[in-house]
Amino acid sequence: MAEDSVVVSTDFPVKRQREVEEDNNNGVSASTVSSMELEGNKDRPDCISSVIPGWFSEISPMWPGEAHSLKVEKILFQGKSDYQNVMVFQSSTYGKVLVLDGVIQLTERDECAYQEMITHLPLCSIPNPKKVLVIGGGDGGVLREISRHSSVEQIEMCEIDKMVVNVSKQYFPDIAVGYEDPRVNLHIGDGVAFLKAAPAGTYDVIIVDSSDPIGPAQELFEKPFFELVSKALRPGGVVCTQAESIWLHMHIIEDIMANCRQIFKGSVNYAWTTVPTYPSGVIGFMLCSTEGPLVDFKHPVNPIDANDAYNKSKGPLKFYNSEIHTAAFCLPSFAKKVIESKPK
Amino acid sequence: MAEDSVVVSTDFPVKRQREVEEDNNNGVSASTVSSMELEGNKDRPDCISSVIPGWFSEISPMWPGEAHSLKVEKILFQGKSDYQNVMVFQSSTYGKVLVLDGVIQLTERDECAYQEMITHLPLCSIPNPKKVLVIGGGDGGVLREISRHSSVEQIEMCEIDKMVVNVSKQYFPDIAVGYEDPRVNLHIGDGVAFLKAAPAGTYDVIIVDSSDPIGPAQELFEKPFFELVSKALRPGGVVCTQAESIWLHMHIIEDIMANCRQIFKGSVNYAWTTVPTYPSGVIGFMLCSTEGPLVDFKHPVNPIDANDAYNKSKGPLKFYNSEIHTAAFCLPSFAKKVIESKPK
Repeated sequence: MAEDSVVVSTDFPVKRQREVEEDNNNGVSASTVSSMELEGNKDRPDCISSVIPGWFSEISPMWPGEAHSLKVEKILFQGKSDYQNVMVFQSSTYGKVLVLDGVIQLTERDECAYQEMITHLPLCSIPNPKKVLVIGGGDGGVLREISRHSSVEQIEMCEIDKMVVNVSKQYFPDIAVGYEDPRVNLHIGDGVAFLKAAPAGTYDVIIVDSSDPIGPAQELFEKPFFELVSKALRPGGVVCTQAESIWLHMHIIEDIMANCRQIFKGSVNYAWTTVPTYPSGVIGFMLCSTEGPLVDFKHPVNPIDANDAYNKSKGPLKFYNSEIHTAAFCLPSFAKKVIESKPK
Repeated sequence: MAEDSVVVSTDFPVKRQREVEEDNNNGVSASTVSSMELEGNKDRPDCISSVIPGWFSEISPMWPGEAHSLKVEKILFQGKSDYQNVMVFQSSTYGKVLVLDGVIQLTERDECAYQEMITHLPLCSIPNPKKVLVIGGGDGGVLREISRHSSVEQIEMCEIDKMVVNVSKQYFPDIAVGYEDPRVNLHIGDGVAFLKAAPAGTYDVIIVDSSDPIGPAQELFEKPFFELVSKALRPGGVVCTQAESIWLHMHIIEDIMANCRQIFKGSVNYAWTTVPTYPSGVIGFMLCSTEGPLVDFKHPVNPIDANDAYNKSKGPLKFYNSEIHTAAFCLPSFAKKVIESKPK
């Protein structure tokens, strides 16, 4: 196996501006998988390569010096959209895996931890949420989780990349099931432009389910974006955005925290959860509320009703519960020190 | 780089009995590192090999289909003790790394999460702990953390592998600093034999800092061992043992849980923490108390005194605090369901 010839890819088409100075990987680019596993798309060798033959390895300047690898049974899809490289493969022990620009977005085995936490942390923190906006989240998992809430009347979703939506509908039906909810209106387009056009004070909850702040999601981590989010929320409305790992990206979290403390005049809190297939095994969320009725994120007021018909039809929650909601806001001392040092 | 010739190792000398039927890694053994990185020990090629050239990759039948890899700057030590293969390397972004039988035991960057939690979860749960026993933990990190507690009068430690102690003293002085505490008595020997010889009702706290239940630590996960632990504890005394990951080893956790519920007549609880360089990014602990004064692990009664001289001399805690103590017992729904199904 190890004696198979291997091919190292050229760099990804999407230039990773922000972290380029950290790249000490000596030309090993993200997204590496054995050429022998390829089916079709042989004309697109520039987006894949082989480091561990037969395995997908996630090597990125965003987490230098470490790599997580999954054994590949079969590559099911590869494509290049207007925004990014899209790949789906069947792994040997984590189910099907969605990869964007060489970075694992979800696996069937652990997606519950991410989707349930990014959705229910905000939705369970306010009573009676009705209008919800999702930016990103093209796989549909967040929609599936929002659907559990019977109070919700309207779900707007703005995803930039139609290929992600289509690929999820084809390969991840248990995740894309979220699109079947009649309350969902899907808009394919830029989240920043969508928010600019949104009437002020519209939404109870906004969820920003983005990839990392390189490539198409970069703007979603910057101050002007948070200002638009704040304007689109009603008084006391809440936002939950993907906010990276305390083990790897404390400097990104510090930046987001500083911006949010300036913009949101209600609560600003960081929470985190475990996701084995994300770098460092954890991912965090920034939860903020606008000036208005007080939101105490740490003590949820709107528990999910196990007997509600909307919830029941989706099957039991695998990860989220009220205790883990509160626990998610407890931080290790090294992270607490940095986050609490930001002016309030 | 990828065109370097690669060498696949033969199997490890330590046969991994328990999981051998799960081995679908097609002959790829644990502990792989580039042969070009080797310095010395060229006569021992059977314990290392190359999958990602220049990287250490942890591939094991205990976590089939996934691998975590760290970039190697330099191999600092390789040896074969009476019990296991011992390796230390300088990684490019996680500091120095200790590896036993191909499995990462600690890295300088994230060891705080493991050492602080396995130690302070039990020691902060009872008032005034005086006599403490550590089984395993040869690196000395648990000793360093116990040393923060001024109430402790006596620390017995039983580690089977002297090479681990010596290697830690040489390469991990900030961890092995625990051995400098005059309250420590080190015994090199088998933990089971040590406990058999211990007078009943001796210890306030026993910490079992073991490697995985394959190789030398296997007995430390079995029922007779827990019975010996229970006898060596005073009434209301507590034990904390390394107890694997909820994402990967729920069946092992179920077994431990069932055994502990039978043996310990006080509290039996599972807690967990994040450690990026462990498989799945998390590791758990089983915390039990014997019949006697009630121990409520979830609400610690013995916070670490920031002003205590013993604690101050070790520098501030990086990970542990009272909130994260309590949060560590909150489990995702999938794990809670399994753990709470065991008869109490």
